Amino acid sequence: MEGRRLLRLLFLLFATVLLLLFTLLNFPYPPSNTAELLDCTTYSPWCTSKNRFQSKKPDLVKNPSYPTRHHHAADVPHHPLDPLTIQEFNKVRSILKSYALLENKPYALHSVVLEEPEKSVVLKWQKGDPLPPRKASVVARAEGVSHVLTVDIDTSEVTGGHEMHLSGYPPMSMEDMTSATVAPLANADFNRTIIERGIDLVDLACLPISSGWFGKTDEKRRLIKVQCYSTKDTANFYMRPIEGLTVLLDLDTKEVVEITDEGRNIPIPKAANTDYRYSSQSTHQKLKLLNPISIEQPKGPSFTIEDEHIVKWANWEFHLKPDPRAGVIISRAMVRDPETKELRNVMYKGLTSELFVPYMDPTDAWYFKTYMDAGEYGFGLQAMPLEPLNDCPRNAYYMDGVFPSADGTPYVRSNMICVYESYAGDIGWRHSECPITGMEIREVRPKVTLVVRMAASVANYDYIMDWVFQTDGVIRIKVGLSGILMVKGTPYMNMDEVNQQENLYGTLLSENVIGVIHDHYITFYLDLDVDGSNNSFVKVNLERQRTKPGESPRRSYLKAERNVAKTEKDAQVKLGLYDPSEFHVINPSKKTRVGNPVGYKVVPGGTAASLLSHDDPPQKRGAFTNNQIWVTPYNETEQWAGGLFVYQNQGEDNLAVWSERDRPIENKDIVLWYTLGFHHIPCQEDFPIMPTVSSSFDLKPVNFFESNPILGIPPNVENDLPNCNAAASV
Amino acid sequence: MEGRRLLRLLFLLFATVLLLLFTLLNFPYPPSNTAELLDCTTYSPWCTSKNRFQSKKPDLVKNPSYPTRHHHAADVPHHPLDPLTIQEFNKVRSILKSYALLENKPYALHSVVLEEPEKSVVLKWQKGDPLPPRKASVVARAEGVSHVLTVDIDTSEVTGGHEMHLSGYPPMSMEDMTSATVAPLANADFNRTIIERGIDLVDLACLPISSGWFGKTDEKRRLIKVQCYSTKDTANFYMRPIEGLTVLLDLDTKEVVEITDEGRNIPIPKAANTDYRYSSQSTHQKLKLLNPISIEQPKGPSFTIEDEHIVKWANWEFHLKPDPRAGVIISRAMVRDPETKELRNVMYKGLTSELFVPYMDPTDAWYFKTYMDAGEYGFGLQAMPLEPLNDCPRNAYYMDGVFPSADGTPYVRSNMICVYESYAGDIGWRHSECPITGMEIREVRPKVTLVVRMAASVANYDYIMDWVFQTDGVIRIKVGLSGILMVKGTPYMNMDEVNQQENLYGTLLSENVIGVIHDHYITFYLDLDVDGSNNSFVKVNLERQRTKPGESPRRSYLKAERNVAKTEKDAQVKLGLYDPSEFHVINPSKKTRVGNPVGYKVVPGGTAASLLSHDDPPQKRGAFTNNQIWVTPYNETEQWAGGLFVYQNQGEDNLAVWSERDRPIENKDIVLWYTLGFHHIPCQEDFPIMPTVSSSFDLKPVNFFESNPILGIPPNVENDLPNCNAAASV
Repeated sequence: MEGRRLLRLLFLLFATVLLLLFTLLNFPYPPSNTAELLDCTTYSPWCTSKNRFQSKKPDLVKNPSYPTRHHHAADVPHHPLDPLTIQEFNKVRSILKSYALLENKPYALHSVVLEEPEKSVVLKWQKGDPLPPRKASVVARAEGVSHVLTVDIDTSEVTGGHEMHLSGYPPMSMEDMTSATVAPLANADFNRTIIERGIDLVDLACLPISSGWFGKTDEKRRLIKVQCYSTKDTANFYMRPIEGLTVLLDLDTKEVVEITDEGRNIPIPKAANTDYRYSSQSTHQKLKLLNPISIEQPKGPSFTIEDEHIVKWANWEFHLKPDPRAGVIISRAMVRDPETKELRNVMYKGLTSELFVPYMDPTDAWYFKTYMDAGEYGFGLQAMPLEPLNDCPRNAYYMDGVFPSADGTPYVRSNMICVYESYAGDIGWRHSECPITGMEIREVRPKVTLVVRMAASVANYDYIMDWVFQTDGVIRIKVGLSGILMVKGTPYMNMDEVNQQENLYGTLLSENVIGVIHDHYITFYLDLDVDGSNNSFVKVNLERQRTKPGESPRRSYLKAERNVAKTEKDAQVKLGLYDPSEFHVINPSKKTRVGNPVGYKVVPGGTAASLLSHDDPPQKRGAFTNNQIWVTPYNETEQWAGGLFVYQNQGEDNLAVWSERDRPIENKDIVLWYTLGFHHIPCQEDFPIMPTVSSSFDLKPVNFFESNPILGIPPNVENDLPNCNAAASV
Repeated sequence: MEGRRLLRLLFLLFATVLLLLFTLLNFPYPPSNTAELLDCTTYSPWCTSKNRFQSKKPDLVKNPSYPTRHHHAADVPHHPLDPLTIQEFNKVRSILKSYALLENKPYALHSVVLEEPEKSVVLKWQKGDPLPPRKASVVARAEGVSHVLTVDIDTSEVTGGHEMHLSGYPPMSMEDMTSATVAPLANADFNRTIIERGIDLVDLACLPISSGWFGKTDEKRRLIKVQCYSTKDTANFYMRPIEGLTVLLDLDTKEVVEITDEGRNIPIPKAANTDYRYSSQSTHQKLKLLNPISIEQPKGPSFTIEDEHIVKWANWEFHLKPDPRAGVIISRAMVRDPETKELRNVMYKGLTSELFVPYMDPTDAWYFKTYMDAGEYGFGLQAMPLEPLNDCPRNAYYMDGVFPSADGTPYVRSNMICVYESYAGDIGWRHSECPITGMEIREVRPKVTLVVRMAASVANYDYIMDWVFQTDGVIRIKVGLSGILMVKGTPYMNMDEVNQQENLYGTLLSENVIGVIHDHYITFYLDLDVDGSNNSFVKVNLERQRTKPGESPRRSYLKAERNVAKTEKDAQVKLGLYDPSEFHVINPSKKTRVGNPVGYKVVPGGTAASLLSHDDPPQKRGAFTNNQIWVTPYNETEQWAGGLFVYQNQGEDNLAVWSERDRPIENKDIVLWYTLGFHHIPCQEDFPIMPTVSSSFDLKPVNFFESNPILGIPPNVENDLPNCNAAASV
């Protein structure tokens, strides 16, 4: 007994030291109050952008249209929608320090972003006008209470601050997440079970898993679940789960509330063949399949980025900024009319509003995995620096994010977004005359697009988010899934050991590894303003018509019936292959020359729908996925589909609830919401890292232009194309 | 009266001369019996490939891996599946000339293609083995009877020849189509009505429109409908319909059976703004939006084409050939296993089996427009030469087609197919570690694909057909729609003239022009042979499971239920968003290391389903679109989803009929059929030529590989990428 007590004491001591060390190392800001600029490129171990891209191409550097980088310390806002600058973050931080509600209390900032001016103000603003007052929207937690504050940066006035009455907590701060992963080490029982499973504590990697909400109404504290893995012999610890061990933690106090310790009979899967890093591949594994291939633009890109955030490309212009919660925000998207040469409004604001990722295993260590990556983790906070030449091609421009730490000190997330032009060999439009008419015509135009990309790594999974702008007026919104599966340990080595009746909740991917079935839903907020703010939503239903006897040799045909949605419930849409519609957002006050209302339509692509029961707590919280399309009247407080405070909330304040109010939406400023979905039954090809799977949907002009807006673009000719030599060395 | 008779006579004379002239000019072969090689590049006015691509890039020419072109006259077959060569076509032609059934009769050949050897023979054959006997499959029509013949090229033996007992006729020959467009000019009533509408006969362009079948059972002749347009002041005559005038023609005799002449009150739409040719654009219309952009491979492409038809790229190898009916045929597609380094069978044969394009206007001049472009017009026959640098990028290789004229003389359709590598800046797989774990990892791999492309111009419409091979084992089959709408004349100039209740059957696109609603269905024949011929079809249904009380805090989750299809009816699939499944073709005899059956799945993308009534004659003929997925046992006579003879058939012999036999399909050589669909409600942006709209589906490995097959591919590094200079002149 004495020996065991000593051992326990030693564990405790060791764990405490480790915790301290880890916390210090991972702290994104110095404990002192210095106001110096923190750049992730050099400061924090989590900001891995040492290889920040510097173009070596002299012609790009020479080209004055190629955007040059700025030093963020000197950034000033140029546009009403520009994100907060380093200087503004520091100002906010010092204002809050002396704000009565927070003064002399330990507090943490969970969100500090620009409080955008009213839409009418932004719409009126023109370049050269003075900027409207700069304000920060702040979510602060102090003594267990969340405060939503508005900080006027010029006047130092702070307003708001009343407690929220709804369930739920703000997004975790980075500090919440990193400290949660080491907190269990302070618990001796935890350490003992780890050691007893044969794992060195130095080989431990733990993940903070949002605990969701499952029907308890009396929970009054922020909770998180922690699950751990062995990093021994692989960088891909995700494939080595310590199955059945779950630590329930108080996020504020870091106190261990409960340890569930089952699954000791489940071996930790082997490390062999799990590492995906090129440097870890054996010569036998390395595949040299292809000669070098590159998208080349010897005269430089065709886009410019003005004032850091205004992207101008071909016939498009829009405001682009990083956001800690949404990742990328596109604002004021306008397209130039080829006839009038004027810029026309298409979308006031578009963003990834929420993600919902329920796993399909109801057992103890898995049932709670029902992630909402934007509202719980911060989709933008998880967007790591993009890897030049691989995440984006050589011709890409990179944009940094500036985000606040929990104490308000700003840091730079470099290369968070890239912008590049893409040409895949595709065709914008074409026509050949054929033998039947005998005319000698072959007219073909290449298709070139502008891609805005971000890649968020929410622990294991990687989401590649693309906003693709096309010259024909289409905006394609594309989601790619890659990264690493969340897997479950199992005693099974082979399917022949498994009873046919047993439910594995997934696929045996390798010895002792099950890839658990899950869904991904990504819900987009799309505030379309088609030629102005007042728009209507029209469902154009394609309905089978039977012909009357004697009317026609045909017995049936399809007819398009236009139905203008009066209120929100008219615009709750479940897609159906056998109940097809087009979904138009039109401007009822503006018509084309021949009298069609101008519009844009949302064109769904391959997708999936949530099949969870509506009374299932995760689906109550994820009720914004109950339909694929919703339309709501514009309301500046309704931007986050899962609610402002998503963490542990009970689903009382989300898109589904708002839409049930059934407010009028005809000829109003409206917002369209679209949810893209994936069912994912893992397969062995997803092991140990998944090839990208993508899906997309389009926003497409429909009688918006008088005619094909790219009728006048030229074909490629040999003389335009570059002369390229192979690289000097290989 | 005298004057009018003279006028009529003059018309007749003029029309006859015109007809003669047109026919001679358009004849693809000389009326003499010379056996010389006809190359469309120089011979016929319909083969517009004067700008045949010759690479100017010295490094490509120097690179021995870059495919070089061959002279077709000397072509010899190298592989059992190689298409018939010029010499073989000529041999077949001379054999048939002295074949008893055709001798001394006028006859026309509607199809002459390789009769592929039995599958077992092809599978056994290896490079170096002697070729199996070369045979041609011939469809000949003589004296109103269609004969299906087999010609043994070595022995000159002809077999078959019995009359077909089912309804329907073989695909039209090019000569059928071109002669039908001028035949109405021999009819004085036709000419008079044209002139009376104010159109010069020299401005007339007519289209041959397959007449379909609408319930008559006594029709015993080949009929076609002809509709005409004014070419005055525009190359885009499709936008200038002579509405309501339809000529019913006997295709064999060219006799005018009936003229329907309505719609004289409908003006011919104006030519203004209809021409899409760059040379016809005004300076004001021309748009210079972009700097030059190009896909560059200074070390040349990574693929080779052996023996003219075997494409080897990265981990893929397949046989590629042009086909007059299907367009492109991919055979023997195999992928190299990264572990064993062996080539593994994926697909024995894949092709576009049929298209079904019903228009949704039941009125007189439109009800019959229910095209089946492969079986009626020949999808490959309509594939025009691709335009280098625009239809395919600079790094493309072009493959020619060799097809027979109606008398059997071969001609060359140059640049019919292109093969190129594409890099769009997309990501093959990636993972970054994030702040939560603090590890410094960013591993990203670029995604490069191989595209096989064809573009068929079936009169107005252009179909861009891509087979895209990915290194991760995926084959993406993508259909792009561009070209020109089939439009309808109308008296309306503006929607405000239209009564709300009136059904336009489409959209007013411009003054006097309606774009009529229509659907496109493209049905693919996919003879998957996953690691061998005997496969099973498994529907993996994702079904909602309710948890039992007390089982879990969750109330529901999704469970994957595997259902092996026993017979064909088990594999008739209507897709549903709320009834989701995966669709696997597995090899039940072959399992992965951990015991999953190896397989490929078909992954539907955005699609549409036919809603026409099943009792509607067009839908009876297009019944192969009644489901999106079908699986049939392999049967070499079942390759064309609409039946072998589609023209005017009554739908007694198509995929739906075969599948109703409900034959066993478990652990058999099976064929999967997939239909991709589009509903098209035209919009003004489609006028006067449509920006490309695409959709696709995937064939994707599912537990086919032991793990991610591209784990070992390298990232891009700066030193691999080319140095490019701007073109010398602009």
